[in-house]
Amino acid sequence: MENVLKQKFSHYTCSLCGAEYGLEEVTYTCPEDGGNLNVCLDIDALKSQFAPDSFISLPEASLWRYLNLLPVHDPGGIGTPLRRAGWTPIYKPPRLAEKLGVRDVWVKDESPNPTASFKDRASAVVVARSAEIGAEVIVAASTGNAGAALAGMAAAVGAKAVIFAPRTAPPAKVAQLLIFGARVILVDGTYDQAFDLSIEATREFGWYNRNTGFNPFTIEGKKTAAYEIWEQVIRRMPEKGKPLTVFIPVGDGNIISGVHKGFKDLHALGWMAHMPRIIGVQSEGSAAIANTFHQGDEKVIPVQADTLADSISVDLPRDGVRAVRAARETGGTFLTVPDDAILTAIAELGRVGIFAEPAAATAYAGLMNAADDGVVGQDDPVLILITGSGLKDVKAAMQAVTEAPVIEPTLDAVKKVIQ
Amino acid sequence: MENVLKQKFSHYTCSLCGAEYGLEEVTYTCPEDGGNLNVCLDIDALKSQFAPDSFISLPEASLWRYLNLLPVHDPGGIGTPLRRAGWTPIYKPPRLAEKLGVRDVWVKDESPNPTASFKDRASAVVVARSAEIGAEVIVAASTGNAGAALAGMAAAVGAKAVIFAPRTAPPAKVAQLLIFGARVILVDGTYDQAFDLSIEATREFGWYNRNTGFNPFTIEGKKTAAYEIWEQVIRRMPEKGKPLTVFIPVGDGNIISGVHKGFKDLHALGWMAHMPRIIGVQSEGSAAIANTFHQGDEKVIPVQADTLADSISVDLPRDGVRAVRAARETGGTFLTVPDDAILTAIAELGRVGIFAEPAAATAYAGLMNAADDGVVGQDDPVLILITGSGLKDVKAAMQAVTEAPVIEPTLDAVKKVIQ
Repeated sequence: MENVLKQKFSHYTCSLCGAEYGLEEVTYTCPEDGGNLNVCLDIDALKSQFAPDSFISLPEASLWRYLNLLPVHDPGGIGTPLRRAGWTPIYKPPRLAEKLGVRDVWVKDESPNPTASFKDRASAVVVARSAEIGAEVIVAASTGNAGAALAGMAAAVGAKAVIFAPRTAPPAKVAQLLIFGARVILVDGTYDQAFDLSIEATREFGWYNRNTGFNPFTIEGKKTAAYEIWEQVIRRMPEKGKPLTVFIPVGDGNIISGVHKGFKDLHALGWMAHMPRIIGVQSEGSAAIANTFHQGDEKVIPVQADTLADSISVDLPRDGVRAVRAARETGGTFLTVPDDAILTAIAELGRVGIFAEPAAATAYAGLMNAADDGVVGQDDPVLILITGSGLKDVKAAMQAVTEAPVIEPTLDAVKKVIQ
Repeated sequence: MENVLKQKFSHYTCSLCGAEYGLEEVTYTCPEDGGNLNVCLDIDALKSQFAPDSFISLPEASLWRYLNLLPVHDPGGIGTPLRRAGWTPIYKPPRLAEKLGVRDVWVKDESPNPTASFKDRASAVVVARSAEIGAEVIVAASTGNAGAALAGMAAAVGAKAVIFAPRTAPPAKVAQLLIFGARVILVDGTYDQAFDLSIEATREFGWYNRNTGFNPFTIEGKKTAAYEIWEQVIRRMPEKGKPLTVFIPVGDGNIISGVHKGFKDLHALGWMAHMPRIIGVQSEGSAAIANTFHQGDEKVIPVQADTLADSISVDLPRDGVRAVRAARETGGTFLTVPDDAILTAIAELGRVGIFAEPAAATAYAGLMNAADDGVVGQDDPVLILITGSGLKDVKAAMQAVTEAPVIEPTLDAVKKVIQ
């Protein structure tokens, strides 16, 4: 096993200039142009070693079942939440399919993850990586799901986490970071200042930095969602049928890039015949990547983001180039939806028993449009990725519903309201 | 299969007077004395039909794997969250064991359930039962986890749910009910008035009532946690070792009674040699059942409940008698802990990556005391049941942590705070 593990991760390439780097040469981004790095599996070595039916290296209900395809030797953390990230459920709610007029609609729900969002996938792999390179402190700039995921996964294995957040961060989200024992530093400035300060501190103190669109291992965690979609859905679809269309909410572009990477791995290994079509969905108020896609370009121009879907509210996406390619290279597209469509989507998902945070419901809002416009037809099998639990942002959910009536405690009063 | 299914649930008995009732004779409580009813499996029929290794009737990661032992024929809801309730993860965090000085400490975490609490177990079974008896509307009085679970499970299968809540219920919790499309009726009165009104409405409109400590099928859902503890932990323990001690947070007494029932089923079936010891933990501010236990009595006297652990804040427990017996009949006990110990427990669990709601952390607070006092020794294998996610009550969590420092966005400022 040891040999295979050493070979499966052979080098890095820059996503902008294509330069190759050896395993010891770089840690974060391309030294030449700052482009995001791809971690490259040794596909030939893996192909010779594993058949599609033998890829599961650990018999566990987590992303670590794909350890053979991950650039980590031994994740550690047995018996802790680190070993429970991923392997999230797939739903196929019949009433959603009926409503949309689309035959096969799957929903992959990330809220059962240990900290209730997709981001646990990235954090679990980054925390495992940090142990292997001997890092003692892991740092990130975030107030949202990424911060909570890093704090939770680090706590699971007793690693130290430092989180930089703007002082304007909601106290409830900061509380979650503190509960997991992270060192939280509130910066009297913007999110971008917190981001930059986290990178300065990384250099100064020899910490390991988890920032999204900066650390190449976040993608390696996120790609496991694609492996699961393959194992749970694609492998069970008829071989000659239409390929799956996957709807993914997009903010900084790292999740859609991760899912794309996962599908590319499986395709390169020869385990999956056809690439799924990937459709990114952004909020109209935070559509930097969608704008670039529709201009036929790769260069992402920052916007002044303003949307209630806070997890995908991003001025300057840190992984925009790869996000654009995820849609372009798979025959997909980018859609945008207004905030009121996101609220409607929260309510629609709630009616089939799925409570999604606004960013997550954005994917469903995109699917509703796509089904209306014929971007997906009745026979196109589709999947939406619900990236986080609605419990993360109950305030937003309150905008999606109308108030309940108040009555006197009498049966007559009940009769009146239920008529 | 049909025959076995019919036989496995043979009759009801009253938990107070012991009277037996046929399947069609009663629906909720004992007509004689109002005692809670036990749903009785046909143990002999099951014993002749199933070996311990063949009990899994559905190959799924949910409580429905135990369909053979549940009083439901066909749960329906394929592809929906109804089919995903239960089969929650077990952790064995090594640092928790070290800290407590107890060798084997398991944690069963109920937060990955579809609505993020243990209550999904009861609601899934009640919703399945409601379909089998042809009920069109399911009703409950609750503002908390039970209401959310009923609303979520009903939404999953398109059933109608009505929730009565006092008008003082926190808007965020009400929003969760509304998101799942439940009909929410806010009652201008106390929780007890909402409870009574829900029962009046049940009678008047022919609805099906899910109230805890009233509908006998809630226990049938809750007992599945015991089956899972058996499958995931007890069956893997050395046969001659000490039996497991299970710590359960207690409010109205229905969860501890359900877990007790599950263990009794397994013991009666001859599949589990020794009954685990069950320890109930209550908040000092809501200790009606603990009081009764320590008075050597069964009659539960109401209290004026006042604790931050809202899910177990109960004036008059609706399932007190069976709760007292769960501890008494298994050689267990009841412990009480103050609110500040609950806050400490939230923080301690957070430090190993588990974010528990206050009620759930109460079980761990009890274990901390028990380990200190010798109620559990170093060699006693223990398990705590974490009944709900901390995301359900972030406000309480905020009381468990100290505020983060605010700094200028400079490296010097970072240096000062991390020293």
